[in-house]
Formats: sequence, C-alpha cells, structure tokens
Amino acid sequence: MTAERPSLRFQTAPADPADKWEFDDKPREECGVFGVFGSEDASVLTALGLHGLQHRGQEGCGIVSYDGRFHHERYLGLVGDHFSGADMPKRLPGNSAIGHTRYATSGGTILRNVQPLFADLALGGFALAHNGNLTNARDLRERLVEGGAIFQSTSDTECILQLIAKSRKGKVVDRFVEALHQIQGAYALICLTTNMMIAARDPIGIRPLVLGDRDGAPILASETCALDMIGAKFVRSVEPGEVVVISRVNGKAHIESHFPFPRREARPCIFEFVYFARPDSVIDGRSVYAIRKRMGRMLAQETGVEADVVVPVPDSGVPAAMGFAAASGIPYELGIIRNHYVGRTFIQPKQEIRALGVRLKHSANRDVIAGKRVVLVDDSIVRGTTSQKIVQMVREAGAKEVHFRSASPPIKHPDFYGIDMPSVDQLMAAQMTLEEMRKSLGVESLGFLSVDGLYAAMGEEKRNVGNPQFTDHAFTGEYPTPLLDHSTDRSSRDYQLSLLAEEAAE
Amino acid sequence: MTAERPSLRFQTAPADPADKWEFDDKPREECGVFGVFGSEDASVLTALGLHGLQHRGQEGCGIVSYDGRFHHERYLGLVGDHFSGADMPKRLPGNSAIGHTRYATSGGTILRNVQPLFADLALGGFALAHNGNLTNARDLRERLVEGGAIFQSTSDTECILQLIAKSRKGKVVDRFVEALHQIQGAYALICLTTNMMIAARDPIGIRPLVLGDRDGAPILASETCALDMIGAKFVRSVEPGEVVVISRVNGKAHIESHFPFPRREARPCIFEFVYFARPDSVIDGRSVYAIRKRMGRMLAQETGVEADVVVPVPDSGVPAAMGFAAASGIPYELGIIRNHYVGRTFIQPKQEIRALGVRLKHSANRDVIAGKRVVLVDDSIVRGTTSQKIVQMVREAGAKEVHFRSASPPIKHPDFYGIDMPSVDQLMAAQMTLEEMRKSLGVESLGFLSVDGLYAAMGEEKRNVGNPQFTDHAFTGEYPTPLLDHSTDRSSRDYQLSLLAEEAAE
Amino acid sequence: MTAERPSLRFQTAPADPADKWEFDDKPREECGVFGVFGSEDASVLTALGLHGLQHRGQEGCGIVSYDGRFHHERYLGLVGDHFSGADMPKRLPGNSAIGHTRYATSGGTILRNVQPLFADLALGGFALAHNGNLTNARDLRERLVEGGAIFQSTSDTECILQLIAKSRKGKVVDRFVEALHQIQGAYALICLTTNMMIAARDPIGIRPLVLGDRDGAPILASETCALDMIGAKFVRSVEPGEVVVISRVNGKAHIESHFPFPRREARPCIFEFVYFARPDSVIDGRSVYAIRKRMGRMLAQETGVEADVVVPVPDSGVPAAMGFAAASGIPYELGIIRNHYVGRTFIQPKQEIRALGVRLKHSANRDVIAGKRVVLVDDSIVRGTTSQKIVQMVREAGAKEVHFRSASPPIKHPDFYGIDMPSVDQLMAAQMTLEEMRKSLGVESLGFLSVDGLYAAMGEEKRNVGNPQFTDHAFTGEYPTPLLDHSTDRSSRDYQLSLLAEEAAE
Amino acid sequence: MTAERPSLRFQTAPADPADKWEFDDKPREECGVFGVFGSEDASVLTALGLHGLQHRGQEGCGIVSYDGRFHHERYLGLVGDHFSGADMPKRLPGNSAIGHTRYATSGGTILRNVQPLFADLALGGFALAHNGNLTNARDLRERLVEGGAIFQSTSDTECILQLIAKSRKGKVVDRFVEALHQIQGAYALICLTTNMMIAARDPIGIRPLVLGDRDGAPILASETCALDMIGAKFVRSVEPGEVVVISRVNGKAHIESHFPFPRREARPCIFEFVYFARPDSVIDGRSVYAIRKRMGRMLAQETGVEADVVVPVPDSGVPAAMGFAAASGIPYELGIIRNHYVGRTFIQPKQEIRALGVRLKHSANRDVIAGKRVVLVDDSIVRGTTSQKIVQMVREAGAKEVHFRSASPPIKHPDFYGIDMPSVDQLMAAQMTLEEMRKSLGVESLGFLSVDGLYAAMGEEKRNVGNPQFTDHAFTGEYPTPLLDHSTDRSSRDYQLSLLAEEAAE
Repeated sequence: MTAERPSLRFQTAPADPADKWEFDDKPREECGVFGVFGSEDASVLTALGLHGLQHRGQEGCGIVSYDGRFHHERYLGLVGDHFSGADMPKRLPGNSAIGHTRYATSGGTILRNVQPLFADLALGGFALAHNGNLTNARDLRERLVEGGAIFQSTSDTECILQLIAKSRKGKVVDRFVEALHQIQGAYALICLTTNMMIAARDPIGIRPLVLGDRDGAPILASETCALDMIGAKFVRSVEPGEVVVISRVNGKAHIESHFPFPRREARPCIFEFVYFARPDSVIDGRSVYAIRKRMGRMLAQETGVEADVVVPVPDSGVPAAMGFAAASGIPYELGIIRNHYVGRTFIQPKQEIRALGVRLKHSANRDVIAGKRVVLVDDSIVRGTTSQKIVQMVREAGAKEVHFRSASPPIKHPDFYGIDMPSVDQLMAAQMTLEEMRKSLGVESLGFLSVDGLYAAMGEEKRNVGNPQFTDHAFTGEYPTPLLDHSTDRSSRDYQLSLLAEEAAE
Repeated sequence: MTAERPSLRFQTAPADPADKWEFDDKPREECGVFGVFGSEDASVLTALGLHGLQHRGQEGCGIVSYDGRFHHERYLGLVGDHFSGADMPKRLPGNSAIGHTRYATSGGTILRNVQPLFADLALGGFALAHNGNLTNARDLRERLVEGGAIFQSTSDTECILQLIAKSRKGKVVDRFVEALHQIQGAYALICLTTNMMIAARDPIGIRPLVLGDRDGAPILASETCALDMIGAKFVRSVEPGEVVVISRVNGKAHIESHFPFPRREARPCIFEFVYFARPDSVIDGRSVYAIRKRMGRMLAQETGVEADVVVPVPDSGVPAAMGFAAASGIPYELGIIRNHYVGRTFIQPKQEIRALGVRLKHSANRDVIAGKRVVLVDDSIVRGTTSQKIVQMVREAGAKEVHFRSASPPIKHPDFYGIDMPSVDQLMAAQMTLEEMRKSLGVESLGFLSVDGLYAAMGEEKRNVGNPQFTDHAFTGEYPTPLLDHSTDRSSRDYQLSLLAEEAAE
Repeated sequence: MTAERPSLRFQTAPADPADKWEFDDKPREECGVFGVFGSEDASVLTALGLHGLQHRGQEGCGIVSYDGRFHHERYLGLVGDHFSGADMPKRLPGNSAIGHTRYATSGGTILRNVQPLFADLALGGFALAHNGNLTNARDLRERLVEGGAIFQSTSDTECILQLIAKSRKGKVVDRFVEALHQIQGAYALICLTTNMMIAARDPIGIRPLVLGDRDGAPILASETCALDMIGAKFVRSVEPGEVVVISRVNGKAHIESHFPFPRREARPCIFEFVYFARPDSVIDGRSVYAIRKRMGRMLAQETGVEADVVVPVPDSGVPAAMGFAAASGIPYELGIIRNHYVGRTFIQPKQEIRALGVRLKHSANRDVIAGKRVVLVDDSIVRGTTSQKIVQMVREAGAKEVHFRSASPPIKHPDFYGIDMPSVDQLMAAQMTLEEMRKSLGVESLGFLSVDGLYAAMGEEKRNVGNPQFTDHAFTGEYPTPLLDHSTDRSSRDYQLSLLAEEAAE
Repeated sequence: MTAERPSLRFQTAPADPADKWEFDDKPREECGVFGVFGSEDASVLTALGLHGLQHRGQEGCGIVSYDGRFHHERYLGLVGDHFSGADMPKRLPGNSAIGHTRYATSGGTILRNVQPLFADLALGGFALAHNGNLTNARDLRERLVEGGAIFQSTSDTECILQLIAKSRKGKVVDRFVEALHQIQGAYALICLTTNMMIAARDPIGIRPLVLGDRDGAPILASETCALDMIGAKFVRSVEPGEVVVISRVNGKAHIESHFPFPRREARPCIFEFVYFARPDSVIDGRSVYAIRKRMGRMLAQETGVEADVVVPVPDSGVPAAMGFAAASGIPYELGIIRNHYVGRTFIQPKQEIRALGVRLKHSANRDVIAGKRVVLVDDSIVRGTTSQKIVQMVREAGAKEVHFRSASPPIKHPDFYGIDMPSVDQLMAAQMTLEEMRKSLGVESLGFLSVDGLYAAMGEEKRNVGNPQFTDHAFTGEYPTPLLDHSTDRSSRDYQLSLLAEEAAE
C-alpha cells in the first residue's frame, strides 16, 4: 500500500505547541462512553452523564439518539457548551441514546474522529462509541482498505465499524461478535442499533464499564460518577469479555449477557486509580478516593521525611497528600492555589515571561511556605517539566527545603491501550536515575511509591508475578496483550497521526 | 434494506423556507468543476477558476491539491470568502489541484456532501469532483452497502468512489473506467491521483467540460469563462464519452484520450444555453451570449406584440430582451433595476409586508414604465411565482399594458441530470393552459419561444425527431437515458433527502 | 490641545490594502438616511427602506425605534444580514424609527461610528442620522472638548449631538436649530425624540432628502427608490435649508416646516446624478436614469467615433452606453460580463496572478469583442486604475481598437461634503493631460463629457457662471461653502483618521 | 429630567435566567484593577496580572497601553481568551498599561461598560479603571447630563471621567483630585495619562489596592496574588485616602504620594477576607488563607457538634473546613467533588431533570458520606438555594446526619460598594429565623460564626462598637458612608439597570 494521505488543515490554525504554556504534565485518558436505553429524554440524560465523564476527555463530544430515525450531533469542545438547552429533546429525540467524550491524541482535534461513529449498514443504522485503543488497528485497516473499504475517519475505532459492515452474518449481534474476534487491545464499547443497545468490555477488562439503572431504564457508563450524575443506581460492573445486549421485550428493557471469549482473569488498568478516574467513582468494587488516600499513606511509610508541611499539587495530588499527612503527622496545608479560570489559549511571547507560565494555573501560597520544609505530593511524574516549575515556584516563595513525593511508581514505559502518554524518550523516569531526577527537579529529596506499595494500596497482598492483577506496564513494562502494530518502535499514536486528514468546516 | 438514517441537524438552524422571500424562481445548476495539472500555484489558479464558475453553485466549494501529500479543504459558502489570501500556496501547496463549486439540492447544505470527495484507497489517495447526476445511484448504493461499504456522504457521487475502491483492477485508470461502466446519467468528472489528473464526460455529453492550456499546464473546466478567468487558452471541448488522462512524461504534461464506450451522438443539455452558462462562455462551439440574443429575436418573430418598451427581467433576461428589441424595433429600456446587495437572510414577518418581497431584489424604474405598454422578457418561467410579483410591481409603477415573453418553451418536465428543478406539480406550465398562465400572471398577453424556435436559435435547422441534438426533456419530456431510479414517482432529489445525515461542526 | 489618541484595533485584522484587489475605482457616497413616523412595524419598514438605500453605504447600518423607550441596534455589514427576521418587531418595537446606512471612509470600519448616534440628554433621548459631511467639524470638536465634552465616536456627526446636549434652550427643536446655526457643510439629517421626528437639509441642499407618505405615516428618505421599496407615495423633496418637524396632533401625524436660515438658491450635488443615486430614483424632480442616458447621448455628440460596438462598463456605465449607442447608431453589446459573486475578501498572493484581478468582477465577452472596434463607456474616471485593467482585458479578448468615453467631465478636485474620493495626487485627471491619460489607459482615443454637456444633460441651458445650479467642484473646483477645516492641505478624512479609536467587540 | 432610555439588545440573546441552573449562590466582586509603569511588555504583564485577578470578575476585561499613542482593547470573556498570544506587544505596545477585569451586575453584560474607560480630553488621553461603586452616581450623572454631558456607558465610573473632563483645573492631577472630592463610595482607581499613572483608594479603603515593584517598574494591583503572578515584589498597600502619582523623572519611575482628604481610620471590606480575595493574597497585612482557617477554628469553638466527618463545600469552604476539622478533631474528608468543566451554558429543560442541576458542579463522594454524620462547612450562606441542594445531594448519598456551618455571620443587609448581592428579600438570613433556616436547609443543626468570632479570626480583640475596624454592613447593617442614592428603596444596581442601553456588535 502506497498510502498518499491528505495533510491536516484547520480553519483556525492551532497554536504552535512550542509557544504553548504547559499547564499539565499528565497522561491523558482518551475517552468516556455513556448510554441510556428506554427512557424519556434519553439524550438529556446522556448529556448529563457525559458531563460527569468530562474529565475523561474535553476536546470533543457527541451523542446519537434514536426515535425511529437516528439523530447525530458531534462537536469539538465541552459537553455543556453544546449539549444543553431546552431544545435538546427536540434536537436529539428518542428513548435511546449513546454518547462519547474524547481527548484528542494529537496537537489538533478533528471533528470527523469525534464519536459516536455512525454507519448506514445494510442491516440498518449503527452507532458506536469506544473507550480504549486497538493494538492491531493498523493491520486491520490495511486489510480492509485492500478489500475496498473507504475510511471516513483516522481512528482505530472505525475498523470495528468496517468489520461489522463487511460481515456476512445475518444478525447485528453476530456481526458485532465476529468483529470483536478480530480486534485486539483495550475497549469498552457502547453501540446503538434500531432496536438494541449493545456493550462490550475487552477480555481482560482494561478499560472500565458499569451498568446502572434509572427507573427501569438500563444505563451504561465508563464510571459510576456518571450514574450519580443522573441519579441512577449502580447495578454492577460489566465483566471483562462480556457482551451485554439490551433490547425491549414485552415493553420492558431486557438485558442479555454473552461471553464470546474464553474466560480470562481480569486485569484492569491501574492508572484509572492512580490518576484518571474521578475520586468519587467506584471501579470494579474499589473506591478511587479511598485508594488514593491509601497511596499517600503507603508513600509516607515508604518515603517518610522530616518536614513542616505537606502540600498537595492540586488537584490530582490532594487525596494522596491527605493520606501522607495523616500517616506522617505533618500538617496538611494548601500551599499551592489553583486558578480555575485558565482558558485554553493563554500563549505568551517571550522566554523571560514564559518562565512565569506555571503560575497561570498554580500559585504559591507564600504565607504557608515561606521558611518551611515542604513535602510536595503529586499523583505521578511523567515528563517532570511541570514538577520542575512548581518546585521552583515553591522555592521562590521561600521554602527552606522541598521534598517531592510521587504517589505512584516511576513511569518508564509507554501505553497502547488508550492512554495518551509521551514517548519513552520524554518519560523522566525512563531516562534518568533517581538521583538524576532529584537534581533535575531541584529538590532535597525525591521519593516514589513502590509497585508493591501501590498494590498494597489497592488492597492486594502483593503483585502476582507472571500474572499480575492489574494492567500496570507503565510501571513494570509487562504488557497484558501482544502488540502487533508495535513491533517497530512507533506507537499507535504515531500511526494515527500519519493518517490525519481533515477539511475545515463552516 | 431496512435503512435507518439519522436526521438532519445544523448548528445554525436554517430559516423556515416558508418565511424566506423568494428572490429567484429559476432552475439551478448543481455544480462546476475545475482542475490544473503541473503549474505553480495550482490551488490559486483553481480558486480563480472556481470563482469564474461561481454561477454554477454558491453554497459549497472545495479544493484538493497534491504536492507529495494531498491537501483538502471544503467549505460552505462562496469561493472568494474561503479560497483567497496570501496563504493559499501554503495551505494548499502543489502543482496539481482540482476544485468544485456546488449548489445544494435541499433546504440545507451539509459540508460532507461538498466536493471534491477524497478517499485513501489501497492504490493511494484519490480525489473526485463531479458535475451532473447519476440516475442509478440508488441501486448502486444499495448494492454497495449490501457488500459492506460505508458511505460517508449522501451524494450520488460517492458511488463512483466506492466502485473504484471495490474494483480489483491493478491500475487506477482501469478501476475508474470499470466504475464508469456501472454508472448511468450525466457527468463531467475531474479526478486527482498521486500522479495523474483524469477527466471524463458522459457518453452523450450532457454536462459541459472543456480542456484548456496555460503555459503548458493542462486545465480542465466546466466552462470556457473559467479559462478566461486565469488567462488560459481554450484547446477543445472534452468529447462525450471521452476519458482524458493527464500525466507527466519527461517533465512535461502528457495528455491521453480514451473512448471506453461505444461512440454515440452528442446530446448536450440545452438548458446550459437557456439559463445556466455564463453569457461569455462558448459551449461545444456555440457562444452562449449570441444564442440568447437569437432566442430573443426568434421570440419576437414568433410572439411579436405592439408595445412601447421592451424591459428585461434582470439579469437573466437581458440578452434575450436585447434580441427581442432589435427584432421588433421596440425600444429597449432598463425598466427594472436589480439590487445587488441582497443578503441571503432577508426574512420578513408579516403577510402585508411580505408582499413587498420582490422589491428586495428588483425595483421598477417608474420613469420608464409609467403609462407605457411594456414587454417583459425573461429567459424562462418555472413556477411563475416571481414572474407574478414582477408583473404586479410593474403594474403598480403605472404600466398601461404588460406583455410577458419567455425566451424558452414552457417547462413541463422534471430533470434528473443535475439540475435542481421543482417537482411537476409546481411547474406552472405543467399545471396550466397558456390562457390560465396568462391570467395567473395577470398580463395582457403571454408568449413562449417554441421548441423549433429554440433549435433555430441554436443554429439547427430543426429538431431531429427521435434523435434530437440536445437534451431537452424539460420542454419535450424525452429523456436521453433510462431512468432506473425513477420508476416510481419520486425524484432522485427526494431519494437524496431521505439519506441526509449530518453532524454539526465547530 | 495635545491630543493623545488611542490607535486602531480590530479583532479581525483588516487585510493590508496593498494586498487587496481593487474591484472598483469609484467615489463613494457615505450615507443613506431613512425615517418612519407613526406606523405599525416602523422598524421593519425602516429596514426595507435602508435596504433600498444600500447602494449609499454597505459597511455599517443601524436603526433606532421608540415605543416609550428607545431601542438601538447597530452593526457592521449589510442591512439584510442584520435587520431581517420575524423577530424585528420584537427587537425594535414602536411606531417610529430612523435608520442609517454607512460607507466607511477609512481602511477600517468601526462600530461606534455607525449611526444613528444616540444620546441620553437632559430633555430625553435623542437619536440622529446624518448623510453628508461638516466642514467645520474639527474646530467644533476642539471647542467642545475644551469645554469638557467627551466624544464617543470620531465622526463629525457627533458634534451636532454635543451641540444639542450643551444648548441651554428649553425645547428640543430650538436646541436643534441652534446647533444647525453652528455647523457648516452638507447635511441631510433625520432625528428621533420621544415625541417627534425632525429632519433638516443644509441651506443649499447638497445632499438629497425626500418626504413620502404611507397610509398617513410620514416617511423621510435620502432617495425616492426607498419610498418605492415600501410602497410609499412620494410627497415632495425636503427643501434646502428646511427643518421638518413631525409630531402627533389629535392622533394624526402633523408636519411643520421651518426655514431658520436666510433663503439661498439650491445647489444639489451633481454627482448624485452622475454616479451615486440609484437609476430608478427621482432627485429634485429629475429622473436619474433619464439624465444618465442623456449624458450618453451628449457624450456621443461631443466625442463621437467610428466603431463597431458600444460596450458599457457594468453596471454604472450601462445607461450612458445605451444613450451613446442610440445617439451614435453603433450597436450596444454586453461586451463585459459582471460577476455578481465577488466576496469582500478575495486577496491573491503573487504579482503575476494579481494581474488577473480585474476579472474577478468583470470578464470580457470575447465573442462580441474579438476583431471589433470597441467604444467603452463608463460614468467617470477617478484614479484610472480599474479602467486600465478593463482596457487591457478587452484588448486581450481581441479588440481591434479601444475607445474610452467618460459620461462625466474629468474629475480634478477633492470633495468635502460626504463623498469619499481619493486625494488630488491620485486623481488621474488632476495629474495628467488628456493625451497622457489616453496613453496611460492604452486606448486609441479618450473622451470626456464637457461640463456644459453635463449641464445640458441635466436639462439646464448652461451652467450659470458665478452662481452654478449644482455643486460641481469635482469638475470645476468651485466649492459651494467655505472650507474652514481645510486651509491646510489635509482633508477632513485625514483628520478623522487621526482620531480613530476602537475597542474590539465580542 | 424625563429620561427616555433605549432598551437592552444583544446579538446573542442571553438565556432566560429562570432556565439557568444555579451553580453558585455567592456574592460577587465586581472588579479587579492592575497597572504597570515603565516596563517592557507592559501589556503582557498587565494581562498576566489580570489573569491573577480573574476571580474578581470573569465577564469582561480590557487593557489600555501607551507608547506615544493610546491603544485600547476591551472584550467580553476571560483574560486568557483575549489577551494572550505572541502578538500582544504589537497589539498593545508601550511601557505603561492599565487593565481591568469585571463582573457584570446584571443579567447581561455590555461591552461599552467594560473598562478601562477612555476619553480624549483637552489635556490629552485619559484611561481609567475602577473597582468599587459610587454611592452618589445617580445625582452626579443627572447633574452632569443637565450640564450637557453625553454619557457613553451606564456605569457609575464614567461620572469620574466626566467630572475630570469638565474640570477647569490646568493639571490632570488637580482635575483628578477635584473629581475625587465630588464622589462618594468605594473606589480603588488606576488611571493612565500620556506621562503618568495615577492611583487612588477611597478615604476609608473599602476596596484593596497594593503597590509592587518589578525590576524598578512600579506595579499597582487589587491583590498581592497579582504581584506574585508576574514575579513582582510587594512594596506596600496603598493607604486609604491616598493618591499615588507615578511619573518618569531622570529616566526612572518616580512615585509621589498625596493625601487630599482629611485622614480617617481605615475600614476595609471584611468580605474580601470571607470570600472574595484569593487565599494566597495578603490584604492590608493579613493573610487571607490564615484568616479563613481561623474562621473555621472559631466556628468549631462556637458551633461544635459531634460528627464523623467534616466536609467542605468546595472550593470556597475548604480553608474554613480545614480549620474546623483541626479545632474539632473530626476528620476532614473530600466528601464533595467539584467538577471543573462546567461551561457557562448548561441549561436543562425539565423540572425533574433540573433537580439534578447542582451535580453539574458538585458531586457527592458516596464512599466518604454514606452512613456518616457529616458537618458541611461553607464560607457563607446568601440565598441558601445552593446550600439546600447540596444538603439534599449529601443526604441522597447516604449521610446519617447533616450539620451545616457557615464560616461567617448571617448576611442580612445589601451592599452598595461594589459587591453584587441579592436584594434583601432574597437573603435567607434577612427573611428567616435560625430555626426556619435550619428547616429550610433540611439539616440536623445549623450554625453561623458570630460577628465577634469573625473579628477574632481577623486578629482583633473585638469589634469597636461605633467605630468598627471593618466595613461589615452585610452582617451588621452599619454602613460606613452616607447612601445618597439610596434614600429610596432601590439599590444602585437597579438604577444602573434602568440606564442600560446597548447596540450589538459584529
């Protein structure tokens, strides 16, 4: 295949990333998914649910509803800016709806990669929302294109749609399962057809997916916090490898469960607990908030230090810092204030002034820091760039000593399951020794939670070597699935970028 | 196929058509196409060429250029509002480019139907611009969808792209020709691949297409006026049934001509001469301006009347009115002034005031009309609604008598080849006798050019019965191709509307 | 006064004028004014009337209505793009309304100079719309600022408002007249107060103003075509020096007429007839269309030439070309086709391609021109830049000879009464002899209508030397009023530019 | 004065407030001000400083810079969305700049009320930014309008500008001081002239204002956090009644201090400490964060209760909750999670679903709350509407008991000094007894900090009766200045609303 692909164009040119102040140095979850079956105002509930999943992706969102016809809207931007207003039930009518919120993996976001994807198949319309990432998308795509398929997006998710379109099976569910057998990687999927909602979670349950209920209407969502958002009850987690088929039987929602794969042990992504999930969510039976506080406690036990104040890097470091303070007995103080009004576009011209950049989002609370020995607690260190700036800011505010603590182990390996992580050469812990990192951050001491400490915080006795309970390759290098697309050194993200093609929209 | 299709949504709701003042009551051409091969600033020349074809479609436009990669931009709106500016060579770099300007067939225009369409085929990228309409698009689409194809637009043009994607031939040109053998209807096509520009005109040449040259770079365009626009020389018309393949050989553009179909006699669309084409174009060897004036002359001979002034309905009636005045000896006067500043959005609230609507675009020049016997000359009458209002306005300005003359025969039949025409029940001449029309218009006399008169104006001795020289079904009911999709009473436009699906764009 | 003034900023930076293709080389009228008193839907009628005056200014428009409160909207852009829609009576309610349409005199247009201006005076709200230009605005402004006035715009018009605000008279009309006694220059004014509409025309009636009637509601407008637009009857022209006060007496509109100045002979601006006014208007009793045709006739008599075709430069040269053709017996042909789809933004990058610029708006109709001796007729020549390009285009289309004729005398002098004209060093006729101009245009012959010919076309026997019937300084250098602000070499326009100050708007 | 004023119009109609979910039930500060004198990139520093003051107003922002000319930009929206980008030094060049960020007091925000205001005075340009509110604005405005002034905004601030314009003094500073003597109320002012920056704080220092220094360039700002933002050193607070005049002497910034008023004891607004100021600011020598924690401690002492967890209402209740937890020994837990992605536009249609509204911003962390006795701590209670919903949400998450604590006394009285507070009939504590409030909130117990407790938290021994150390009328009803405009029952805000007049902008 001699692929010739159109280049990327946006009506409003994205700012040169080199000019953009970094506000965060965090890995990013790529998606949240949500669905409602058989409820009045399904699209309104979906909008609220997606709003509850907004932390899983802020750059694009979409909803498909069905009322005898499919209704489809997709936007760049936040859920609340597009899917609100009294006209929602008229714009997106029907008793069933699915939605998606998305973080873009590249410098630019293109609308036609925003989900749910929709296709007008021979068996009828089919909408699909996907959280996760396929590890054999490249091979699938090349094979499908050779077979005459025309892709409308550059996302790996469209492979699933094309496989379903190409299937010769007579029933939609059979086509869907046939497609699942051909894909590899991580997925939590929610689909809407003319008479069903179908959901699936990959065989080892890398990405989360829960089933809820609101007055008899089944709800599907990435996290429980989205159920709380709409006042729905939590029913259970969708199991790894499970296909849930929801249809209407005798006027009521009927839920069937299929397990088309050989059963395997679950291995959910531990990063959901470290950083992604909202603290008020409960994933596979575990409270995210409680685990994060325990991470802080374990961290204090493993890396304790004499100091005057424990200061969280807000907001992600807050629960761990509370745990650290409680375990160490050192007072917890809001030594860094977060500015919530940072727009997306703050770009500044000069090097001298750019040094002030971190303050756009974080300010030192001088009164608490000056003259003190400060323990800074964050959930993780990725590139270390923001951590450096925060340390410097805290020093300039007069800290006597600065000790940095990460509530997760060093991140040394890339991800291929739907997390947007810098490449290995940008991961601080992959490039430096602990002492080099300490110097680079400019702190008196640096400490990370151990992998065992992390598992202990998760409530496990220890990590089962050879068969670990969680997907934890970022820390350990052990990937839970084969990585076909990645025999070479380029990540699936690089692949996707080479396919980017877009037109501008009026 | 139980098609379930998403409904239509726009971010800015289109105005209720019932609230929109009609400015025009004209059929509409759906497209103009343009291409440049092997010239510096190909995209800039394409933008200028498309501007010269703007009369063929004002609601969408797009350009694809190639410089080793494909670059693709599409917009709703006018060419000059999107494809101008010093950054064009940077936005759309390369020595080859094709472009398209489009009139939407429905109340709303959706961006993903805007052309050129582009696909990333196994053989490489492929861009396609189409003027015309396929008459077997519905069957093709159903067959392709059954075979697993996912359509990204609702336009008939995408069938061609899907057929090419599905073809098993090893060469792009062979795939293209294989696709042509499966489609029926009217088409002037321009395609861009990684190393070729390919053009084709349907077997009887319904839609126009010309070949030009600018300093050695081949140019393709719907009309000669687009060649004049960029200072290119006219070379020849692309022949009906011809496939033109332009590639680079020894550093120069090389043009090959193929005739994959059995040769048939040409039968170009006569409406190009009556209304669509720009008066300064020459189509298949005939000057549009000269023919329109001759139509006016023939009209005067066939429907002469005693009067004081000949007044054109601007701008389309101007050449015919000049011809009518010259042949009749009645003075030609600008009795109706056209307001060029009509925006798209003028909508007014009340019935009483809506009666003033026609004046938004046309004003009576009272000084010329008051007390006179006026002959109003227009190119055609479609629904008659605007004609009625113009007659009333001319009366209110004091005309003693009003005689209405149409420089083409009565329009009684719908079109399926790329002209947007009201359905039969809205065509005045299909619903009324001549006398009923006269009364409905409120004029002292009404006259139409005869079909023979029209052919005479075209320079033909007479219409060849059974084998007419032009596609003239609007006047005669004789369609030049079978109409597979239209065995039922619904038009291809209705079909397209049922497929409309769109997301909103940021 | 050490004026320190903010510089100009627009949210969307205006294109560098040097990069902008010139479409027109015409003087520009700066404004149209309109008012309705005591009619239902006054704002809707005002919007329609302004649309009929759109040719007098396309860059800004505004309406003030009154229904016990004042309602005020102003926009950049066309009337139809802002003042249409079913919500107009709700947005701008009331039985009285005035409106304004504006052409900006500088490279940029700023919203706060868009009229009507409004002030909340001690006597109540006061809205003001002005067509024309004050020649002592600079002195007035400096005096007012010294006295403590804060100007909200940079327009000369605001001086009138400030003078009224500062007046110690007890009645609004007396304050208005007191202000009129302090201003000099050209003005047609329409004002709206809580219970009156007031209009005034300057002592010699430079700018036009007419009074009409629609079902008992008085209408004021710059031109009669605006009356036709809303189906209003023409009553009479407002007389030079007249102040018209319209109020409600016994439930009916009551019109009073005042003449606060010593009576002087009228001297309306002859350029309204040459170029500005719409052809279907009647100004001070003269049909614009008829006069333009007579200019063409006189031009043929004065500058006749042997030729094959008379070709108008569309659209402004059309009536004169018709007159020229009729008087000379040479056939009138549409040798230049105007493209009506030119957006505002067509900007092209390279010199070579910029040469094609004129074709964006005008195309040669080769069939009519090739091999012919062509007489090009335009209404006037200003800088000559567009004329040069049109001549070149006509030559390239194959003309054997090109003869250029201007239906007005050479323009040699600047204007200070509300016409936007290039400075003297840019006026072709001010800088060159006839022979130099001929060579510069590249034509076989060049001819201008004489001043006497122009007066003859106007129906005058001859120009009264020392006391001419019209304001004709552009041709003659004789200004009808003292030019206080212009003792130095800078024009009032330059002055205004130095005052420009603007904020961006969301 | 029979004032007739235009009504309010926006291009995009603001949502019906009745349809808008309340996210907050907080008083609002109306403004933040900032200035830089004599520094490179003054406008960039001003943008950063304003960003640091964004919590003081999010609906409008503006900057004026001076480089020999004034440059002026104003926008609706956030600082970072408008005043960022590499072109800032080009858009707003110069070594001096002042800026303003604004919260609108009414349902709509109008651009022409956005500050800094600018006027072209006889003595030169003058820009003005104001935080606070004048209590005699109405009288001043009426008097100025009677004298012939035309106001361009409806803000009280313009009175100051008009007074300066009208002054007969020869020097700008003298005019400024003369104006100060005529105004009453609260103000922190920063002005920019052609060669000076002038600042002033009202005689009792109601609103804060500090002086800083960045490499020799004086900085003025509402709060110290804005100094930290740009790495400037804190120098001192501007004193109540002080006029600071900064000019350039011998190439250096020269600061003069004037005290034009009789010295009075300071009485800064205590609400800055309770809610407005950022926790990392130090106001008049007091750390806001430390005081808020002390409020929590005092609150625990005064209103202690047996409970299992102390839960802050984020974010404003966090420091007080930390203090409460520390003093009471009850564990501090994040029982409510704040969603940071709430857009401005989330509007939902149905009553049933609107009940979910509070969750758009706040979610209960069920794991921490279920089965617990919860103490909710917030900084204050205004209308109580949001508090009710939060209590209900906490109950639905399974709380066994809910105890509500406000870290400030009951708010019973309106403000006229620049705080946007609901009218008395909407203030919960003005309408209900403590027991009624407890029932209305639906809690087991309700407690407020006492006024003495508040003063104790401020570090005062006690409130000096008759001469209190702070402006605390919201709690006590004792206003620090006469309220001329408010002898009647309408607030200054009502007055301003009646003057609102605006046009839409393109």
